Amino acid sequence: MENLLYWAGLSAVAVNALTGVLDAGRKRMDLIGVVMVGAATALGGGTVRDVLLARPVFWIADQVYLIVALAATLAVFFVVRNLRLPPRLFLIPDAFGLALFTIVGTQIALEWQAPWLVASLLGMITGVVGGVLRDVLCNEVPLVFVRGELYASAAWLGALVLVGLQALSVSPVAAAWAGMATVLVVRLAAMAFRITLPTYSERE
Amino acid sequence: MENLLYWAGLSAVAVNALTGVLDAGRKRMDLIGVVMVGAATALGGGTVRDVLLARPVFWIADQVYLIVALAATLAVFFVVRNLRLPPRLFLIPDAFGLALFTIVGTQIALEWQAPWLVASLLGMITGVVGGVLRDVLCNEVPLVFVRGELYASAAWLGALVLVGLQALSVSPVAAAWAGMATVLVVRLAAMAFRITLPTYSERE
Amino acid sequence: MENLLYWAGLSAVAVNALTGVLDAGRKRMDLIGVVMVGAATALGGGTVRDVLLARPVFWIADQVYLIVALAATLAVFFVVRNLRLPPRLFLIPDAFGLALFTIVGTQIALEWQAPWLVASLLGMITGVVGGVLRDVLCNEVPLVFVRGELYASAAWLGALVLVGLQALSVSPVAAAWAGMATVLVVRLAAMAFRITLPTYSERE
Repeated sequence: MENLLYWAGLSAVAVNALTGVLDAGRKRMDLIGVVMVGAATALGGGTVRDVLLARPVFWIADQVYLIVALAATLAVFFVVRNLRLPPRLFLIPDAFGLALFTIVGTQIALEWQAPWLVASLLGMITGVVGGVLRDVLCNEVPLVFVRGELYASAAWLGALVLVGLQALSVSPVAAAWAGMATVLVVRLAAMAFRITLPTYSERE
Repeated sequence: MENLLYWAGLSAVAVNALTGVLDAGRKRMDLIGVVMVGAATALGGGTVRDVLLARPVFWIADQVYLIVALAATLAVFFVVRNLRLPPRLFLIPDAFGLALFTIVGTQIALEWQAPWLVASLLGMITGVVGGVLRDVLCNEVPLVFVRGELYASAAWLGALVLVGLQALSVSPVAAAWAGMATVLVVRLAAMAFRITLPTYSERE
Repeated sequence: MENLLYWAGLSAVAVNALTGVLDAGRKRMDLIGVVMVGAATALGGGTVRDVLLARPVFWIADQVYLIVALAATLAVFFVVRNLRLPPRLFLIPDAFGLALFTIVGTQIALEWQAPWLVASLLGMITGVVGGVLRDVLCNEVPLVFVRGELYASAAWLGALVLVGLQALSVSPVAAAWAGMATVLVVRLAAMAFRITLPTYSERE
């Protein structure tokens, strides 16, 4: 289980690096810009979580994460972009990455004695801040804030499910699976049925 | 006194969340974007201060701050925007929030053994970085850097008054009141008499 | 040697503050905005390194760095901009600043037991993140990511040379000089011969 989570975490890092590269490419960044934005997208969420919790930053403690992020970035830069894959192809692995990052982040925050609401927020931060950082570095309004998609909200809901079930004395492993399933189901259902959040608009 | 400061700090968090919501609304963000930008505006300054000082982050140690920030954000999203209040109405509570955040931030930095100039800067950071973060997330040049208003400068001046008076052995409480009054008077006078800072302009 | 590095570090801070001021000026920021952006440019890279490593932040531990950054910023605001110096004049000291920040940053990360790849990345971060922060605060895509210049890449290469030579048991001082020379030679050669990095472009 521990081992599975580790490999799944590395896959999530790789998927996130990919979205960073695609976005950086749209801004015609050079090789080093693409590498930096890809790495920031892949590692940013967990880094902010660790700094806020005053934990050792995960990719400094174990540089395999950094190597995977850099390798994924370079692979996309030199290979994937020549394959003309449709961007929609990446939405499913991205949803898995989101679910995984969120649950791992929430779990880590709980183990670090964060209060429940903080833990759920840090879980969501782990899942989405990489993308926010990518958009800020690419000089755009963060996509996750404007599209009305159930993305950050799916993550937060899943984190709250995990926290809630643990408070009800459900075993941590079962709570983690339930939380992950919540993120995935909400995210995939929102994509399939175009469910959106209300958008702020001032009264005319 | 301790108790008064706590409630005043919570009010400042709520006021700051409000300005974040208004700005996020102008960018047509969705509910989750508004909540995230509101929370970042309300909690960002103190978070940067705590991370730089390697202190436990205040809203992780006591999640009441987070709850207030989220509640204020949701209240604005669902209620306040329907009331058509003039934005100028918020300038006075915002000035109080700035004064309070600045003085609390400076005091915390001094207690954490920061050198005097660092402490005054961290006080100003506590007061204004939330707004800077809000503007960066909304993809704008930070307002506090361009408008020429005495805002960050009022905060810095008040922080320096607090630091200076303490160095002259004035009691911490009296120094705090004097610093807070300085921020408020400078800020309100600048608004009333349209006093502005020089702007950088290259020689033609 | 220790002493030399300290003075060189302070010079690098001053040079970096300068580029921040010039950029902030182009956005017509006011005095406080220029000071904040100048200080963020000068101190940002080392701050991110220290926060990621959970070290005490360098300009909080020794406020001379902060004083130099502020003094350089004010000097540029009030004096240098009236001198009509050509911007190219600053490219050479900037290259020295980059080399120095990178090597000092890498060395600090190695002493802090960071793994080799992490240490080299943190060295590059020390060298370039100040400029990235400057561009984000000025609402621009970070220059270092788009121009195709050998800037961040020169820094990373020099950091890897330092790390590699130390792994081969070369003395730390000799490795530091070799790393610094690498950054400088690559950076200056790239400027002289207009060597550029490939840019990401999707296949038409």
